Amino acid sequence: MSVTAAAGFEAAGVEAGLRTGSGPDFALVVNRGPSAAAAAVFTRNRCTANPIIWSKQVIRDGVVSAIALNSGGANCYTGMLGFQVTHATAEAVGRELDISAGDVLICSTGLIGEQLNTARLVDGATKAAAALTASGGTAAARAIMTTDTHPKQAERRGDGYTIGGMAKGAGMLAPGLATMLVVLTTDADVEAPQLDTALRAATRVTFDRLDSDGCMSTNDQVTLLASGASGVTPDPADFTRLLTEVCLDLALQLQGDAEGAGHDIAIETRGARSEEEAVAVSRAVARSNLFKAAVFGNDPNWGRVLAAVGTTDAAFDPFGIDVAMNGVRVCQAGQPDQPRDLVDLTDRAVSVVIDLHAGGAAATVWTNDLTHDYVHENSAYSS
Amino acid sequence: MSVTAAAGFEAAGVEAGLRTGSGPDFALVVNRGPSAAAAAVFTRNRCTANPIIWSKQVIRDGVVSAIALNSGGANCYTGMLGFQVTHATAEAVGRELDISAGDVLICSTGLIGEQLNTARLVDGATKAAAALTASGGTAAARAIMTTDTHPKQAERRGDGYTIGGMAKGAGMLAPGLATMLVVLTTDADVEAPQLDTALRAATRVTFDRLDSDGCMSTNDQVTLLASGASGVTPDPADFTRLLTEVCLDLALQLQGDAEGAGHDIAIETRGARSEEEAVAVSRAVARSNLFKAAVFGNDPNWGRVLAAVGTTDAAFDPFGIDVAMNGVRVCQAGQPDQPRDLVDLTDRAVSVVIDLHAGGAAATVWTNDLTHDYVHENSAYSS
Repeated sequence: MSVTAAAGFEAAGVEAGLRTGSGPDFALVVNRGPSAAAAAVFTRNRCTANPIIWSKQVIRDGVVSAIALNSGGANCYTGMLGFQVTHATAEAVGRELDISAGDVLICSTGLIGEQLNTARLVDGATKAAAALTASGGTAAARAIMTTDTHPKQAERRGDGYTIGGMAKGAGMLAPGLATMLVVLTTDADVEAPQLDTALRAATRVTFDRLDSDGCMSTNDQVTLLASGASGVTPDPADFTRLLTEVCLDLALQLQGDAEGAGHDIAIETRGARSEEEAVAVSRAVARSNLFKAAVFGNDPNWGRVLAAVGTTDAAFDPFGIDVAMNGVRVCQAGQPDQPRDLVDLTDRAVSVVIDLHAGGAAATVWTNDLTHDYVHENSAYSS
Repeated sequence: MSVTAAAGFEAAGVEAGLRTGSGPDFALVVNRGPSAAAAAVFTRNRCTANPIIWSKQVIRDGVVSAIALNSGGANCYTGMLGFQVTHATAEAVGRELDISAGDVLICSTGLIGEQLNTARLVDGATKAAAALTASGGTAAARAIMTTDTHPKQAERRGDGYTIGGMAKGAGMLAPGLATMLVVLTTDADVEAPQLDTALRAATRVTFDRLDSDGCMSTNDQVTLLASGASGVTPDPADFTRLLTEVCLDLALQLQGDAEGAGHDIAIETRGARSEEEAVAVSRAVARSNLFKAAVFGNDPNWGRVLAAVGTTDAAFDPFGIDVAMNGVRVCQAGQPDQPRDLVDLTDRAVSVVIDLHAGGAAATVWTNDLTHDYVHENSAYSS
């Protein structure tokens, strides 16, 4: 159930004193091989943090031996000094593990515009390297938590190989993979280009469709490391399917722990002309603060669904749209259908199904409601 | 200070029993001429209410003699019956005033998907027609209030002519003029095509840049009626300038009364390659829930400003951006500048200035913070 579920990996989570208060804040995941193939996808935000700038260089050759992740600071917009901090962290990990710093990915999370303490990061690298074990996955998953209330881990077993993973993120979840750090590991023997293809296919329909609050982070990174320790080279389609399952598992854990959320909302758009349009419609609803506030109040306000649908360029007849909430069709062909009172929104899970009757494509976007606690946590969060 | 400030207009606001509880809910503004020239702009939402569908037909010939506005229901997604309700209201107004129903604009606001009571609307038309006076502007402005805490009115005097106006709206304020009803009146003698040009120019830089919560309504309408009673035909540029002043006055009143808001935030982007890009950058920040929640907490979290800027396609060097909040430059060329502690956000008015250093264009978008009260009002609002 962790990044050490797959053979060939060791991990650790230690306290480096980076964050306010106590607790682990530095995680290290090491690929012992025999293979060191890797792939990564990054935030699409153009304002990116130093660890993103660094990691984009490291991943170019498809070879990664270790990934270090810290909470306590995003190391974003911290200037040249900030980049040196990231570089120094990679060098420290490289020294400890006797590998090249150029094979070490770095991830950071926390407040933008604050310098991290290099000495503490280097100390964290030393401590973490000493603490590495083949059962350290959960310790690593704990060390990357910020406002997460629990560690997020997943695991799937394929035909002779395993995929495991961990994730952190409890807000700013948006299509650019916002404030989300994910490490996926497998003992399958897969080359870097195929890992890249599989990872992009899996994230496209999972993390990219998780849109908790529409805000895209500067630090998001999803990394996939393959040790080849199983000796098995899976069928690419099977591998992608299993990887997608792990990603969806983690994505829904992130949704379930989104900051201050009271409801997990799955918004499915059917009958769209294309998958892209289905995503656009679902995402427009997912980003409607009015709709999200209504769900917080257990109010099946389907008018706010249609008002959001109407802001998109998707193909539809405005008077040919059906809307169902938790299985009750409240709007049929643009007219009131079943009474809204029949919709019970008291459970955490909420389903919205929009049928555009304009084609055969469908897609789901996952979001959360807009709550008092969301406002509170995000107005108080400066640490 | 109202829609009856300009000569040639009468107005009334009466109680038609449309809304829950008591209070005026039906407004009527009549243009007594001699001219009946008019222009209107509508929500860009593709899911539009019946009064919008009706009014778009009425405005085609540029002739409008009266506009009736009701709260208590949006008359949106109410099917053919809903359209008949709008039609019947226009017919009732026409009968009372001895004018064509085809010269009567209709505006409605309230919950989507609920039928309005035709008999009560017709009764409202009768009552309002009987109550029309040349000093009825404020009564009309009160009758269109929903969650507004006070009526919004404005007036400017030009060279021999006057422009007055009223507005309602306290949420769902977005580029499509969301849940915003505005009636502007003038006694200038201006033909409909010139009114249209002036109105589009004025709304483009005022109401279209008010983005309280990113949600676009199905019912927005801004109407400009010209009686010609002053006999003055103003210089087009002067008229547009004065009209823009009235629109900005009303827009900032709407911002100041946005549902649950604690801060009025002006987000100016300078140094943009084009005005469109300046608007896009300012709007991206205005739609960041994380930024808005931070302002609610008086937290000058400029990292959230940059994270929003980075989601746009505007021309900029990510490490060439300056950000100032309330006059304190907290970020210079992508690095921390003045300490964020120097920024005092306790006042209601907040200024954010982003300099992209990529050109000579600038634009301001006005928004509000994201507060507990916003969540509360919009989770409880079903009436």
